Amino acid sequence: MQYTASVNKLTRPLVQELVDNADKLRIDVQKLENGGTIIDAGINVPGGLEAGRIITEICMGGMGSVTLSHSPYTTNWPLTVNVHSANPVLACLGSQYAGWSLSHEKYYALGSGPARAMATKVKEGVVEPVEELYKELDYRDSAESTVLVIENDAIPPLAIVEKIAGACGVAADQLTIIVTPTSSLAGCVQVVGRVLEVAMHKAHELHFPLENIIDGSGSAPICPPHPDFVKAMGRTNDAILFAGQVQIYVKGEDEEAEKLAKQLPSSTSKDYGKPFADIFKDCNYDFFKIDGMLFSPASVIVTAVESGNSFRAGKLDNALLDQSFGA
Amino acid sequence: MQYTASVNKLTRPLVQELVDNADKLRIDVQKLENGGTIIDAGINVPGGLEAGRIITEICMGGMGSVTLSHSPYTTNWPLTVNVHSANPVLACLGSQYAGWSLSHEKYYALGSGPARAMATKVKEGVVEPVEELYKELDYRDSAESTVLVIENDAIPPLAIVEKIAGACGVAADQLTIIVTPTSSLAGCVQVVGRVLEVAMHKAHELHFPLENIIDGSGSAPICPPHPDFVKAMGRTNDAILFAGQVQIYVKGEDEEAEKLAKQLPSSTSKDYGKPFADIFKDCNYDFFKIDGMLFSPASVIVTAVESGNSFRAGKLDNALLDQSFGA
Amino acid sequence: MQYTASVNKLTRPLVQELVDNADKLRIDVQKLENGGTIIDAGINVPGGLEAGRIITEICMGGMGSVTLSHSPYTTNWPLTVNVHSANPVLACLGSQYAGWSLSHEKYYALGSGPARAMATKVKEGVVEPVEELYKELDYRDSAESTVLVIENDAIPPLAIVEKIAGACGVAADQLTIIVTPTSSLAGCVQVVGRVLEVAMHKAHELHFPLENIIDGSGSAPICPPHPDFVKAMGRTNDAILFAGQVQIYVKGEDEEAEKLAKQLPSSTSKDYGKPFADIFKDCNYDFFKIDGMLFSPASVIVTAVESGNSFRAGKLDNALLDQSFGA
Repeated sequence: MQYTASVNKLTRPLVQELVDNADKLRIDVQKLENGGTIIDAGINVPGGLEAGRIITEICMGGMGSVTLSHSPYTTNWPLTVNVHSANPVLACLGSQYAGWSLSHEKYYALGSGPARAMATKVKEGVVEPVEELYKELDYRDSAESTVLVIENDAIPPLAIVEKIAGACGVAADQLTIIVTPTSSLAGCVQVVGRVLEVAMHKAHELHFPLENIIDGSGSAPICPPHPDFVKAMGRTNDAILFAGQVQIYVKGEDEEAEKLAKQLPSSTSKDYGKPFADIFKDCNYDFFKIDGMLFSPASVIVTAVESGNSFRAGKLDNALLDQSFGA
Repeated sequence: MQYTASVNKLTRPLVQELVDNADKLRIDVQKLENGGTIIDAGINVPGGLEAGRIITEICMGGMGSVTLSHSPYTTNWPLTVNVHSANPVLACLGSQYAGWSLSHEKYYALGSGPARAMATKVKEGVVEPVEELYKELDYRDSAESTVLVIENDAIPPLAIVEKIAGACGVAADQLTIIVTPTSSLAGCVQVVGRVLEVAMHKAHELHFPLENIIDGSGSAPICPPHPDFVKAMGRTNDAILFAGQVQIYVKGEDEEAEKLAKQLPSSTSKDYGKPFADIFKDCNYDFFKIDGMLFSPASVIVTAVESGNSFRAGKLDNALLDQSFGA
Repeated sequence: MQYTASVNKLTRPLVQELVDNADKLRIDVQKLENGGTIIDAGINVPGGLEAGRIITEICMGGMGSVTLSHSPYTTNWPLTVNVHSANPVLACLGSQYAGWSLSHEKYYALGSGPARAMATKVKEGVVEPVEELYKELDYRDSAESTVLVIENDAIPPLAIVEKIAGACGVAADQLTIIVTPTSSLAGCVQVVGRVLEVAMHKAHELHFPLENIIDGSGSAPICPPHPDFVKAMGRTNDAILFAGQVQIYVKGEDEEAEKLAKQLPSSTSKDYGKPFADIFKDCNYDFFKIDGMLFSPASVIVTAVESGNSFRAGKLDNALLDQSFGA
């Protein structure tokens, strides 16, 4: 991957911003006995939209700009997150994607953010990235300190913290773990802020050549949080599936750009058409029974920079959004 | 009040930003003979939108994010201010609310911003906050320096400056007073930027438990300034009354959230229905004859985070807005 | 010109931001043999939207705020640039305007940004600004280092670099030249980001007294880039001509403000009505045959702050925009 940057170094000032403004952001910064730092952004403290905004920039490896504004895109949900990145593949897949599966006894969580790019495991005597994805991205980061974002409603046990530090090759006191429950405001922002990431992820699934993606921008309405995990997760997904929009700039042939645009919107999925929580229930809460093609923005523009042509597909669906958000 | 922060310490870099960029922002920074600093943001200098944006963040005690953008919410008035705060009660009532009544001979002004949280008076031998409100908020700040924002078209007399410094327990050379006339651009932004504050203030009047408010966001169109004080003030109010919108996140019962949503919009007031300058005139310019329930955003969403339900009431009124702004 | 500031000093941190984040922004920073610095923002590297955003702030002499967001102003092109400046005359005409004509052998380019305010030439034994415009603006800057933005698809030859450094009175190692091709994403942003500048330029052409302009704000959709220079340039212009909007705040008589509003929109030009690339072709690619009154935003609000009245003219044209952008 060309034009790389260190997602861990780029996020350090953002992590410091959370720590320095913990009171203002109503988050909690704890030192663990092993020296690790836990930032609670919504378990025992309120957290909030602004914490979520900063955490989204951390998730994107310091390579994305994330802003909040009121926008009349949807009929009933003005509060909107806007994201853009000059390197959406690295920012979104190389950092923001929640691809690191972590478990210890009954604790299970997905890790997201810069630490993923440092994490290694030993397989048959060979050191390799914890996630296969990094081989395809051809990206590895190294830094003195690192940060991982976990979407969960519990502080991870010490064993998980040590596992992460170990995999990243840092002492525990050089590791910060940020925890955002799905049902928290910060959690809503940081998941809905994945509107560009899900487009990158689906482009990858569709075998679009990632090196041809040169820039991208997206927006989606911030969902109202829900105390029930399944409904909370449903809403964060639906914000993107029913009202997320992205514009992606790509090199290469028009045919490829057009194909990407046509295949990318959530409405192309056979599972599209009802709130995510209902789909999940109808699949007996088995994530793997859900069509992977569902996870993508509602509306997509793909601009082929070598021809100047833009291809668009999909559209916002206010009725389904209201059904999910409980208008 | 939990999760407090020092609104005075948080605003110091913002005040410094004004001082450092006075030429660029076309504001004037003066040292008084007693060492106090006056920032003129629109009396003898043009000031402008960006000065107003920074001053709004100062008013919010450094706890709010304030941005300007063009938005098609209203038919004719694209320029919009967006605000959000992870602690709207502290940011808006504990700092932004213009609650400090100041007078000396013929000079009368309302003070707003961080200094309010430090100001004390001696009443029957007991030191207490200048404003009763702080007892309810259970918030007091202490800092080495402080800043107060005054909406007025004249620089305050030295006696007022010394009164403020004295009440805050700082030497005059540790006090900055920012003056924004209502008819200035900076004044328009900083008053319209109170869209979330008026919602907090009315929630308080409605006896909604403030500790249940966990986050909030708002937007409103920037009014065109008017040289006449009453019309200028009218427009800044009408920007919020006819086109302000807020989304508030609250804990507690659905019934409470729904009641708040229903009672909050400006249209619930018996005085709603004509530009504020006309109402004021019809009350013979007696502020206290105006229904206190009038001062609130046009459109409100209250999200009850413990149930996930959102309640909405009110709507934008383009016709009244145009009548006020002089489309 | 009152309330001036040094556009060169104000831009230094922004130039440093480009240099420090070159990897993240996918731009290239080169040292020339004479010590000069070239920042390639889209010739041999992808560059992108965020680089374009920062470069637009550099063009505006550090006196403008530039943000990107998704907005539903136009039917098909959500990605929008917002700009505002407390001193639009100085920011836009004193810095952003591409008024410095540079040529060496076959290389021809227009220079834009802070260096223009330092550049001098000797005419009949007298040192004077390279551009006549500065006499009218009554503004000159002096600084130890400077930066010029060039819209071109080639790195300027060394002779041009030395000419610029010489004219600005700085050693080559104190000069940074940023190059953005019209067909690059950064180029699109930085040209569309001239939405307020073209309004200032046309106001000047219309002999509106510039000292009466006290603030201004604008927005326009980011055009999709096109590989063909004429079409690329056409789209950047059309973004403003068909969908740019500005609000300008002026002192002086209502008659003057109303006249400005009526004359300002692009639709007042006899050449208005088709994509710019077609106009250019129909003029046999002779820029000087195009009506100068064409170059302005689609929609204009002029607010006369001394009366409080606003005057508006022009409107967005989605059909023409789509014709240009290739919906």
